[in-house]
Amino acid sequence: MEKESGVERGWAMYIKELGRDVPSLWMEDGGRVVMLDQRLLPEKVELYETKTPDETAQAIKDMVIRGAPAIGVAAAFGMAQGWLNGLPVEKAEKVLRESRPTARDLFNAVEKMAEEWKSGGDVLRAARDYAMDVIDMCRRIGENGSALIRGGEKVLTHCNAGALATVDWGTALAPIRMAHRQKKEVFVWVDETRPWLQGSRLTAWELLQEEIPHSIIADNAAGFFMWRGEVDLVIVGADRVARNGDIANKIGTYEKAVVARENSIPFYVAVPKTTLDPAIASGDGIPIEERGGEEVLSLGGKRIAPSGSTARNPVFDITPAEYITGYITEYGIVKDISRLFS
Amino acid sequence: MEKESGVERGWAMYIKELGRDVPSLWMEDGGRVVMLDQRLLPEKVELYETKTPDETAQAIKDMVIRGAPAIGVAAAFGMAQGWLNGLPVEKAEKVLRESRPTARDLFNAVEKMAEEWKSGGDVLRAARDYAMDVIDMCRRIGENGSALIRGGEKVLTHCNAGALATVDWGTALAPIRMAHRQKKEVFVWVDETRPWLQGSRLTAWELLQEEIPHSIIADNAAGFFMWRGEVDLVIVGADRVARNGDIANKIGTYEKAVVARENSIPFYVAVPKTTLDPAIASGDGIPIEERGGEEVLSLGGKRIAPSGSTARNPVFDITPAEYITGYITEYGIVKDISRLFS
Repeated sequence: MEKESGVERGWAMYIKELGRDVPSLWMEDGGRVVMLDQRLLPEKVELYETKTPDETAQAIKDMVIRGAPAIGVAAAFGMAQGWLNGLPVEKAEKVLRESRPTARDLFNAVEKMAEEWKSGGDVLRAARDYAMDVIDMCRRIGENGSALIRGGEKVLTHCNAGALATVDWGTALAPIRMAHRQKKEVFVWVDETRPWLQGSRLTAWELLQEEIPHSIIADNAAGFFMWRGEVDLVIVGADRVARNGDIANKIGTYEKAVVARENSIPFYVAVPKTTLDPAIASGDGIPIEERGGEEVLSLGGKRIAPSGSTARNPVFDITPAEYITGYITEYGIVKDISRLFS
Repeated sequence: MEKESGVERGWAMYIKELGRDVPSLWMEDGGRVVMLDQRLLPEKVELYETKTPDETAQAIKDMVIRGAPAIGVAAAFGMAQGWLNGLPVEKAEKVLRESRPTARDLFNAVEKMAEEWKSGGDVLRAARDYAMDVIDMCRRIGENGSALIRGGEKVLTHCNAGALATVDWGTALAPIRMAHRQKKEVFVWVDETRPWLQGSRLTAWELLQEEIPHSIIADNAAGFFMWRGEVDLVIVGADRVARNGDIANKIGTYEKAVVARENSIPFYVAVPKTTLDPAIASGDGIPIEERGGEEVLSLGGKRIAPSGSTARNPVFDITPAEYITGYITEYGIVKDISRLFS
């Protein structure tokens, strides 16, 4: 992948246990897709492989791989697998489209690959180019967003919008990673992000690999630290951005945005252009995935709620544009995202 | 206890497994204090016993018993144990005062019992009277608060301010319990309340015993359901109320209050007079307990965060009075709590 795209630098995500930098997923020549199994982190660094669009769709559904840009890349790779295996394009498209409903990137990637496929192009090459573009966008988000960090800031983030979620660099974590590499002092408040614990399991793990100072907090504590003046800046990712700037992101993002504004704390959304959805006018139109209640009722296989109680489990929420200070994109930081839709 | 106080009705908290109504703690004649071990719920209904002020203080510290009014009663019982055992009053006072720092009720109870003790009174009887007063206040909170529920409402609550937290009835749960007994339709959104999960473990369990319809949600989802118009009313308890009406309550309460106001949803605090602290002018003056990070880093003995990461764990936060629609007290529902301080 590196040579093909002309990107000369190594990967940005360092993994201590492997002693090297790796991306969160990649595709080998025969069409084998290899991904870090995010269900097993932080206990185990284990690779998970798929060979067909069905297997890749299942890996997306089961959250072996998650995060809007990363599932976009996984879907692109899945399309390439279908193309290599001689499947009908419609079949590959269908199964990948149905894997998860909220992230715009997934549909973008599938549509792009289907177009290449139908016009007789090289879908393997197109999928790899798509992946490299995502990485490059994230690196630029890091460069642009790093300007918000002068040194000494405490940044709050929600969920995992890191390298794991985006192949490399991250979206929300890219500015933090970049600032740290530029030797600026930065501290991260990590919301644990119930129910799936992307914060305590994945974001903390990424920060730990690069020794970026951080503390995990219960999601409930974010407001308290904002109120106490211990949060300078909030940066989150997004799964979809509507034309008016409303975003869908991990459940809880909306609460953090409201409380940040109440405390005059800047709230930034780090997002590449692939996450924008020109077909949707406002947040009301974004479908919100609701997963099974067992993610809330139990943890690590252990039931925490009384048997007989049920749970509701919406996994994204909508943050209206009015709460968003700015969008950190690969083109720069913008206050009004609408001009990027053209 | 019932006969002594002249309260003729039985207890309000029904426990299916025991097939009868029980309070969350009581004191037997010899000074043995018996409490439902709240660390083991909802898996196991098990009683925990203490015989000395030291053991009772330890039970409070270890959260065998928790909830502001209930730990007040436990502290009163602890003082009675000291009195029965012939300890110096200062010794009993000291160990109980040092058990937990945030709830006003604990200090109220200890002071009241110390006064009785020093004036040669019957501390056992005084402690039981204190307990009966708490129960009676809670029942009246239930009667007064039930007026807010006409039928068909969806009420959000945070943490456990139920019978478990208050010996019987509850504070925030009392209006819900009373409305349900009055055959009004009521549905409860139960915030799971990380890190200790008082919501999914205790509140859901209490509601389940009486078959009150409810759904557990991740704390992060409360704002989403408010935004979607699916929350009609929020009722929470409090651990301490300052003279200006600011409250300390379970971590996360502040976020819910801010987001409720943003969505024009009434936010009520159910609180007996014993929780008011005339010595404190505003929320800034209320000490906030911070517990060890392991409650955030692990769950049910299972580590969920990478080893090497640390956590911060403030267990209460301050909700300024401006976010509070009203206070449900044993005297009625008041908009301005300050007149109850006289």
